[in-house]
Amino acid sequence: MTILEYYRANRERFLAGLTDWLKIPSISTLREHQPDVRRAAEFAAHELRGMGLEQVELIEGKAGQNPLVYGEWLEAPGKPTLLLYGHYDVQPPAPLEEWVSPPFEPSVRGEDLFARGASDDKGQTYILIKAVEGFLRGEGRLPINVKFLIEGEEEVGGAHIEAYVSSRPARLQCDVAVVCDTEMFAPELPTLTTGLRGLVYTEIEARGAAQDLHSGLYGGAAPNPIQALAHILAGLKGPDGKIRIPGFYRRVERPSRKELEAWRRLPFNEKTFLKREVGAAALTGEKGFSVLERLWARPTLEAHGIRGGFTGEGAKTVIPAVATAKVSMRLVPDMRPSEVIQQYRAAIKRLAPPGLRTTTRILTAAPASLVSTDNRFIESAAQALEQVFGHKTVYIRGGGSIPVVGLFGKHLRVPTLLMGFGLPDDRLHSPNEKFHLPNFYRGIEALGRYFQMVGGT
Amino acid sequence: MTILEYYRANRERFLAGLTDWLKIPSISTLREHQPDVRRAAEFAAHELRGMGLEQVELIEGKAGQNPLVYGEWLEAPGKPTLLLYGHYDVQPPAPLEEWVSPPFEPSVRGEDLFARGASDDKGQTYILIKAVEGFLRGEGRLPINVKFLIEGEEEVGGAHIEAYVSSRPARLQCDVAVVCDTEMFAPELPTLTTGLRGLVYTEIEARGAAQDLHSGLYGGAAPNPIQALAHILAGLKGPDGKIRIPGFYRRVERPSRKELEAWRRLPFNEKTFLKREVGAAALTGEKGFSVLERLWARPTLEAHGIRGGFTGEGAKTVIPAVATAKVSMRLVPDMRPSEVIQQYRAAIKRLAPPGLRTTTRILTAAPASLVSTDNRFIESAAQALEQVFGHKTVYIRGGGSIPVVGLFGKHLRVPTLLMGFGLPDDRLHSPNEKFHLPNFYRGIEALGRYFQMVGGT
Repeated sequence: MTILEYYRANRERFLAGLTDWLKIPSISTLREHQPDVRRAAEFAAHELRGMGLEQVELIEGKAGQNPLVYGEWLEAPGKPTLLLYGHYDVQPPAPLEEWVSPPFEPSVRGEDLFARGASDDKGQTYILIKAVEGFLRGEGRLPINVKFLIEGEEEVGGAHIEAYVSSRPARLQCDVAVVCDTEMFAPELPTLTTGLRGLVYTEIEARGAAQDLHSGLYGGAAPNPIQALAHILAGLKGPDGKIRIPGFYRRVERPSRKELEAWRRLPFNEKTFLKREVGAAALTGEKGFSVLERLWARPTLEAHGIRGGFTGEGAKTVIPAVATAKVSMRLVPDMRPSEVIQQYRAAIKRLAPPGLRTTTRILTAAPASLVSTDNRFIESAAQALEQVFGHKTVYIRGGGSIPVVGLFGKHLRVPTLLMGFGLPDDRLHSPNEKFHLPNFYRGIEALGRYFQMVGGT
Repeated sequence: MTILEYYRANRERFLAGLTDWLKIPSISTLREHQPDVRRAAEFAAHELRGMGLEQVELIEGKAGQNPLVYGEWLEAPGKPTLLLYGHYDVQPPAPLEEWVSPPFEPSVRGEDLFARGASDDKGQTYILIKAVEGFLRGEGRLPINVKFLIEGEEEVGGAHIEAYVSSRPARLQCDVAVVCDTEMFAPELPTLTTGLRGLVYTEIEARGAAQDLHSGLYGGAAPNPIQALAHILAGLKGPDGKIRIPGFYRRVERPSRKELEAWRRLPFNEKTFLKREVGAAALTGEKGFSVLERLWARPTLEAHGIRGGFTGEGAKTVIPAVATAKVSMRLVPDMRPSEVIQQYRAAIKRLAPPGLRTTTRILTAAPASLVSTDNRFIESAAQALEQVFGHKTVYIRGGGSIPVVGLFGKHLRVPTLLMGFGLPDDRLHSPNEKFHLPNFYRGIEALGRYFQMVGGT
């Protein structure tokens, strides 16, 4: 039985295994789900152990941190070692009422598997696991050496993996890191990602009066924290999409002409993107930049949530004591998180109206990353993808952030391969997240082919 | 037994009765409390019936409207008829966790009675009821004629009473309306209110994408409804407290020099007001106007609530599909609600960024009101208050809105007496609302004395 035959014969079992993993609501942003997060880690460790990996363990962090799942197979001396990365934690499913099927009861409709985490990132992590399993169970050995490192805090800043990678570089020593957490540009178009934006995620709180006040009795003299946040948010970014933080764009450079030209050749239709994916009245953002450049190579500032005062049915004439907003910035290469944070804090301080106490908390900070394309690990990946998908591999960037890419470069001094099988309409972080099952199966085959090519077999 | 002796002998019973009424969570803004709202109305009708009023009934409105409570005693021919107004509905108690004792379990601490509605307005309405009861039970008759009209929609716009007053002016015919829903300027200072601000209460909704989007994948090109609302709110009012709606201030006139001078003589200390009542870092608002003028004679715009996106613990990188805000404007005399609404809608339309669908809903609209002070009903009230409280009565305005004042003037063509016994620190609409019990008892006595004076006894 060839490796390909093994993969194809086991599709049903692979899908059933992934379904079981997806049923565990391992939501890392919600403390009450910590037991579920742990169950999802144990599930992954059980898989690794079952297929014959060694040193399989849950690596515990500080109190309250989620375990890393580790496992290795190093019995191919002289062959390259690959560090395989994914994450088992997921985003909250809210708003629940918008899901067609419940987020933690995976449901196949057509060729898609619907569930929170189906694409981001249990489904993609499972591709790595099953690609390795095929060799160990089918052939008894791998053509390469592997180390799995699967984290449970990707959606909450990844403090644990950051501490671990920086303190244990020897254990994680490898030739290349493989991250399976990105998307393909189009359903049939094999894709490698060469750059990701960084992320600074923050919370702003404005406090006015000591308690909620009646707007009739105090309106006109008491500070209003909602109004203060509105003023701050409007001051941080204009309706033209330009961020108004002094110094913010200083280090931002445009991609090379060659890269921009390659992006222009991608099959991208702005109208289809607006209609099928966004569904708004119009796209927005900075003038003078293509949509792809805005998404991949321009920094952003977005409010993710805001809350304050009375939001129930009807009318309540209250001036609330407090209001909060969650705001993040996506950074592009060369921007320094610490410098951006300083500029951001200064801008908020300048914008905050008098009479209120405004505090800013930084929840996450990670720089952008660029991947070099001129090494054999990337070249082999492009070839492996082409063989499985039957189309030429394209190189894109991603607008999201995967902080471990920076960590691996800094502490392990290895390139990272961003080979992912999600699709643009997978609705990551949104209701009705799904994974395109043909990509799940082809992803496993592509990884298998990649292992063979890198191992020289 | 004089009327005063009756009132004093029955204090405990009065407090017990009020306590029972306050236990009913008659929150008119929350639909699920409609049965409680009705129970509170029935409680009031039962009181009126029990003390011998006639024609006592719950007047039903359209489906979904809350009943008016009516009752009359018209057996003093040749004597004036007073229309006695209060309301039995209350504001929602949220945030619940800030209450020292639960909002619907009335609790006496020191000289104060703590409960939602204690001051606004069950406690004050109960003053009217008990003042009348004293005469009917103690003396068997009143020195005047009375008609009670107690509503259950004061906190939600009062559509029912508006329809009723405009359609049944003959039944409500009277010489003066007495509204017991305002406050005294200071604990020992008997107070009549001569003006109130109007209110336009609205809801703004901004819709961007068809569903929540991942900010990494779409940030920079997809419209953000939170950012849109921030831009609109910041554009409607500057951090200097100036409302930026074109034409908004056109009809606003300053009070007479005489009125402004009287306000300057009031015992008002800005620092104490800031520290004891507001508890913020500083007061805010328009430069060039005293605090009292800002509160009583300047229009305002305030956001009461805002909601959108992810507001839970931690970080979720979502661009929400929708965000909403509740915003009201307080109007001063001469401003026309319909004109203000038009200006407001036009300003929002102009401010709304592209790519979003922004809708504005008007929940309430009522003009400001001014009361003339040169009639015998007001003069007698000032004297009655002075006799009970032992201090000279002061005339103030109020920053809140009591739409029925305008209704009574327009349809019944009578002056309204705004005689209230709340205190500035009663925390109306806020957690730990309370009523100062000495004012509850003196209020009843003052009303009793007032009835005697107006009746010429």
